Amino acid sequence: MKPDIAGRQERLRKTAREKNLDAVLITGRNDVYYYTGYLGFGDDVAFLVLPVEGDPLLMVSPLSNEAVEAYRNTKLIESLKEVRKHLSHYKSVGFDGSNLDVITFKRLRKGKWVEFAAEIKKPRQVKDEWEIQNIVRAIRLTNQVLKNLPEIEGKAEEQVASLIDIEIKKRNATNAFETIVSSGKQGAFIHHRPNKRKIRKGDLVIIDLGCRYSGYCSDISRTIYTGRGKSPGIVGTVKSIQEEIIDNITAGVEMKYLKNLQEKLFRKAGHEVKHAFGHGVGLSVHESVGERLQENNVVTVEPGIYLNGSGGCRIEDMVLVKRNGTRLLSNFIKSQPI
Amino acid sequence: MKPDIAGRQERLRKTAREKNLDAVLITGRNDVYYYTGYLGFGDDVAFLVLPVEGDPLLMVSPLSNEAVEAYRNTKLIESLKEVRKHLSHYKSVGFDGSNLDVITFKRLRKGKWVEFAAEIKKPRQVKDEWEIQNIVRAIRLTNQVLKNLPEIEGKAEEQVASLIDIEIKKRNATNAFETIVSSGKQGAFIHHRPNKRKIRKGDLVIIDLGCRYSGYCSDISRTIYTGRGKSPGIVGTVKSIQEEIIDNITAGVEMKYLKNLQEKLFRKAGHEVKHAFGHGVGLSVHESVGERLQENNVVTVEPGIYLNGSGGCRIEDMVLVKRNGTRLLSNFIKSQPI
Repeated sequence: MKPDIAGRQERLRKTAREKNLDAVLITGRNDVYYYTGYLGFGDDVAFLVLPVEGDPLLMVSPLSNEAVEAYRNTKLIESLKEVRKHLSHYKSVGFDGSNLDVITFKRLRKGKWVEFAAEIKKPRQVKDEWEIQNIVRAIRLTNQVLKNLPEIEGKAEEQVASLIDIEIKKRNATNAFETIVSSGKQGAFIHHRPNKRKIRKGDLVIIDLGCRYSGYCSDISRTIYTGRGKSPGIVGTVKSIQEEIIDNITAGVEMKYLKNLQEKLFRKAGHEVKHAFGHGVGLSVHESVGERLQENNVVTVEPGIYLNGSGGCRIEDMVLVKRNGTRLLSNFIKSQPI
Repeated sequence: MKPDIAGRQERLRKTAREKNLDAVLITGRNDVYYYTGYLGFGDDVAFLVLPVEGDPLLMVSPLSNEAVEAYRNTKLIESLKEVRKHLSHYKSVGFDGSNLDVITFKRLRKGKWVEFAAEIKKPRQVKDEWEIQNIVRAIRLTNQVLKNLPEIEGKAEEQVASLIDIEIKKRNATNAFETIVSSGKQGAFIHHRPNKRKIRKGDLVIIDLGCRYSGYCSDISRTIYTGRGKSPGIVGTVKSIQEEIIDNITAGVEMKYLKNLQEKLFRKAGHEVKHAFGHGVGLSVHESVGERLQENNVVTVEPGIYLNGSGGCRIEDMVLVKRNGTRLLSNFIKSQPI
């Protein structure tokens, strides 16, 4: 199975025509991949020009000389002047202001440029079969990584994070983002860089990790209780809030409705909402979904309780939005994986 | 030993005053770290406002709630409006257009904004004692990584890259950039993502890797010959070109002179220059240095020969520029480390 690159290009051309554009300039790394299949390397620049009529042209740094073999219509460029010159053939150009820095923008722009970020990215919201397969594969790798983690009690947070990253690497995948391991009091920090704090018996430990496979990301959180017996109450609270949110997800539901639902559930439980209940995932770990969920959106559901000076809990799963409800993509990852 | 954060801020204030600015808006992740010591997390937004008079203010995403403990004067912001409002207190603001996307720029700007990227980044060109120590530490880790690599013959490129990344992780460091392993014919690709090609006896294999430690990067390349006996001629050619360039580096020399020198040496050897001889390194893997080298710049020297359809060789070391010559920072990394 392969992605339908030509179809993706054709649909974007149609949107561009409707806005009376002559060409679209695509500068986001993941968008270039989405519309060409060319993944790029590191921070090497890559500009994709998709004209409304005719073939797209990929312009990349000479350091990316391999691109010439990877993508049919590629030009190695020495300077931005060449991109500017090529773009000057088009009267009106749609561009992605969220993936273009101000200096490059000023050097490239000539004639009429129209902000087109939303239109370039919108098709990525609904995943096709091939994309879903890759996302599921990334989630499976994440499960293997968690299952292969040794006992975490007695280890420093940064050591646990390193072990996770090593397990990811062993599977020829990469980190979708910096692994979070926040234990004990530090669990109150939502995005916490693992440090030398040693995990002790009785800690709640948030592990938030993601793999990237074939360009597609997973994003999963588990909160592990290192004590004996029953977990502290907030774990059950977070779990039941998560379940109730998932139960309310289906094609057609408004994101605002789910946001309000999260607010309501937290209030009822006597806790404060500190971040959104979830987000879209795909080529980027954080992607927008529309105002209203659609079939084949992939979203995370990740409620979290954070108590200053005491600790926190976050549980994050990934669901595929269906016409009647959801498919829980991360269902095979146990709640206490280690 | 610690970096002189207050001194760095004071010097930037002075530059800003000379340009009649009231404040500087710093948005580059590495620049925020340089001027505050706050490293940040993932892609979480961080805006640093350094006024010409008074204390700097760090504004970060609520997801980075740990920042409040890490940096004295931090505010968690829910939206760009709060940044815009804070900035509106200043009549003229210097900003970094290379680290600000067009959409954010349009949402934030009010009043007079002056491009100030070069001035914000210039102080990073000359490294202090503490920075040099961290860079040397990153190079030492790179050496350990290379020394711990097993036999590469018979392994796939991507497997060798994974082994390298695992060795980096074991040392609680991170990759400064995606590890390059390009073998045989694929050595002709300058920036090559390691793939399933198996390394064979008699291959030249370019390994280009870097560690990041305390924010500071190393960037080292070695070309390993897996055959018996003497390496192919291009290895010796690259090595002698590299030595001649290093011999010509000293404080006061123009970058242009070194560029021309590389051209001349390549021409003499019958080869073509495919990329710059080197670049500055520090908090970023690729940093600019001025037109003329100064004492305590850190630069790489990395000539490379790339032969289409046949293979390539690149050798990259890091030098500290001194008043009379250089200190070779990566001198302890063997030419054939495995």
